[in-house]
Amino acid sequence: MKKTIFTFLFLTFSFLGFNQSDSTFIRKIYDEALENGQSYENLRSLCKDIGARVTASAEAEMAIKWGEKLLNSYGFDKVYLQEIKVPHWERGTTEAAWIENEKGEILKLNVLALGSSIGTNGLLKANVIQFNDIEELKKANEADIKGKIVFINEAFNQKYLHTFKAYGACYPQRGQGAKEAGNLGAIAVVIRSLASSNDNHAHTGTMSYDSAKVKIPAAAISTNDANSLAKWLNKGKVTLSLEMDCKTLPDVTSYNVIAEMNGKDDKVITWGGHLDSWDVGEGAHDDGAGIAHSIEALRILKTLDYQPQHKLRCVLFMNEENGNYGGKTYATWCKENKEVHIAAIESDRGGFLPTGFDIRGTDKQVKFVQQFKETLYDFQLFKFDKGYGGVDIGPLIYEYPEMIQLGMTINSQEYFDYHHSEADVFETVNKRELELGSAAMAAMIYLLDKNLK
Amino acid sequence: MKKTIFTFLFLTFSFLGFNQSDSTFIRKIYDEALENGQSYENLRSLCKDIGARVTASAEAEMAIKWGEKLLNSYGFDKVYLQEIKVPHWERGTTEAAWIENEKGEILKLNVLALGSSIGTNGLLKANVIQFNDIEELKKANEADIKGKIVFINEAFNQKYLHTFKAYGACYPQRGQGAKEAGNLGAIAVVIRSLASSNDNHAHTGTMSYDSAKVKIPAAAISTNDANSLAKWLNKGKVTLSLEMDCKTLPDVTSYNVIAEMNGKDDKVITWGGHLDSWDVGEGAHDDGAGIAHSIEALRILKTLDYQPQHKLRCVLFMNEENGNYGGKTYATWCKENKEVHIAAIESDRGGFLPTGFDIRGTDKQVKFVQQFKETLYDFQLFKFDKGYGGVDIGPLIYEYPEMIQLGMTINSQEYFDYHHSEADVFETVNKRELELGSAAMAAMIYLLDKNLK
Repeated sequence: MKKTIFTFLFLTFSFLGFNQSDSTFIRKIYDEALENGQSYENLRSLCKDIGARVTASAEAEMAIKWGEKLLNSYGFDKVYLQEIKVPHWERGTTEAAWIENEKGEILKLNVLALGSSIGTNGLLKANVIQFNDIEELKKANEADIKGKIVFINEAFNQKYLHTFKAYGACYPQRGQGAKEAGNLGAIAVVIRSLASSNDNHAHTGTMSYDSAKVKIPAAAISTNDANSLAKWLNKGKVTLSLEMDCKTLPDVTSYNVIAEMNGKDDKVITWGGHLDSWDVGEGAHDDGAGIAHSIEALRILKTLDYQPQHKLRCVLFMNEENGNYGGKTYATWCKENKEVHIAAIESDRGGFLPTGFDIRGTDKQVKFVQQFKETLYDFQLFKFDKGYGGVDIGPLIYEYPEMIQLGMTINSQEYFDYHHSEADVFETVNKRELELGSAAMAAMIYLLDKNLK
Repeated sequence: MKKTIFTFLFLTFSFLGFNQSDSTFIRKIYDEALENGQSYENLRSLCKDIGARVTASAEAEMAIKWGEKLLNSYGFDKVYLQEIKVPHWERGTTEAAWIENEKGEILKLNVLALGSSIGTNGLLKANVIQFNDIEELKKANEADIKGKIVFINEAFNQKYLHTFKAYGACYPQRGQGAKEAGNLGAIAVVIRSLASSNDNHAHTGTMSYDSAKVKIPAAAISTNDANSLAKWLNKGKVTLSLEMDCKTLPDVTSYNVIAEMNGKDDKVITWGGHLDSWDVGEGAHDDGAGIAHSIEALRILKTLDYQPQHKLRCVLFMNEENGNYGGKTYATWCKENKEVHIAAIESDRGGFLPTGFDIRGTDKQVKFVQQFKETLYDFQLFKFDKGYGGVDIGPLIYEYPEMIQLGMTINSQEYFDYHHSEADVFETVNKRELELGSAAMAAMIYLLDKNLK
């Protein structure tokens, strides 16, 4: 194994530096994207003709047809569906919450069940106990929590320049809040939305019961409502009433949608985004933008009559949000088919201004990609740091530990204002920024294809 | 003179590279901006409590009071007004345009008089003759133009990655269109708005009659209307009716608003943005953002108890949009007072994500600033290229040719969707992006102050 990797690295990592012909070709990619780009119109169609498309919904099925039809319209070498099994969680039709203080004053809360949560089976009502974060909750006494509704109010840390790090830091309250609160006897958990802005809409997202002894309902409330609830709790006892009829149904069959351009050999470069979204808003930034980027990157390369060295494969992954069965099945399928994978790129950080690529790989692989830095500087791509690729392409690394994975980095300052909420709509996307993302994807695919052996 | 410059460079350009204590202090700047930043609230107030503030208007006067009061509230070492004379142009109350074809069909156009234009003195009506750009117009025959309304329809070149370059490329149709069309006998000129998006609002901006033999009215129409007019002209003759009662009144007295922190010596580092805007929208990005950045940079340095080496001076310039008398007067005043100026920074490119600084100076000065690159990389500032500083600080360079001028670079992809139009409102600004701009200004002021002798 070690020898294989060494050979691979040896073949790959010649010094490249700035290359005029690369720069000329990438300029053509950008011209095509900025003058004739179709990303924006494709995203408009996905957001407005279909809209939100949570895994296993009718809209997700529609999005699969939409993707297949669009990819076929571009005349790529091969377009096909890849069957997967996916979880089927539904929000249901009832979702409401309010708080009441000792004076009998009430306040309606903007609430969204977290994905995978069970319903409340009617109206729940209990006293609220607040924690600043999951660690504080874990240290609490069962006696203080039993029969209550746990409220975890960890705010987004504004000091992080990279908002994905702030998101990651408060992720545990969403992912593990129900398990920890349930294990201590709570009857429900309500969390502060994982959002960068103070506003009135709740932000959903997946949660897990994992090894929970009991399953309790889990919901997010808006950041403004979390502030109100905290204020009310400062003044005295508060009860919270909650009703949600969300539920998990049996798994269903769904699909990844795949398009390919043949290369001189069969080694594969994969890139993609995810076709599913949450069930509120339109999934414009998460991850309609990644879908638009991924399709457009292939369209641009074909339009410019690029002749690939390797097999170029664009994957519209299904089910990133609650299970990642699209990504997992794809990786297994590649390995079973004895494919050789050399690189993968993911776009799942929104439709804002692209800034570069995070690199998941060895230090040598990071340096290899950083050699494109000079060429890409003129195209306003500046960031080439060691980092994470993406959820969908993640499972590939276990099958192909020697591959390079890249996550396109995108200005993340606004992303968590919209993420997983009704605010994630097409109108928040700027055409030029979106088209630049597609050009950046195409440019990196071209550079990897040309320079990886 | 040569010797002076040499000595200056010698003192200045030691190799700095990455410096841990700089990085630690800049981290504090960013923490203050992201956690306790006041830029967003200040910009909200400027946009909503005052709004559009064209030079010499009552709102411009109000903005001066607003700025003086706000700067005083922060307790800086000195706050004062600097008297200047400014032009007084008013849009008036009547502004309308429509086109009519040979079938008698009519279409209303969304129109804005260009700043400094004369009015129409009642309703003008004439056949339209179209040109693709100012160069085509210059080559035209007087006989073809005489008595007509000239329509210049040069579109924003989407292929430029830097939208300010695209703006500059089609700027002549706005700046010189009236002069060229008037000299060839046209009775008015109408231009396509200098905008990156296809939408329904016109974008105004300044124009000049310069050496024109006659003055004719000049207006911009929306990009969508320009497309419609071009289509109509493809099918046959089109008349355009135009009425505008804008006018220029006698010059008035106005003010730059200035705040200072004393340093160990009296050498000056100036930075600023401009307080005036056009008279539509709210001047949120142009240049309310620059005002918010500039004030906040000084507030942050004071809050962190920074002890400057040099005199730090924040200037809210008046009249950038139509005359630059704030910038011109400031430069003359500095020279007359025998001040020594070592650096200036301007923020006049919007309230979006900051990306770095353009450097106006010698190659050695560019390299000097580029030595901060490594330190600023962690703060997501990547761009340090030779370039332009800004209009307001521009005149200083003629008085102090040896100084460094910097223009903060800001993601420009959306800027010209809003610029000089009713769409330039507070709601298009993101809090985190705006606060990051203020932090970037403060960080660069700190680095220049510490490292320039």
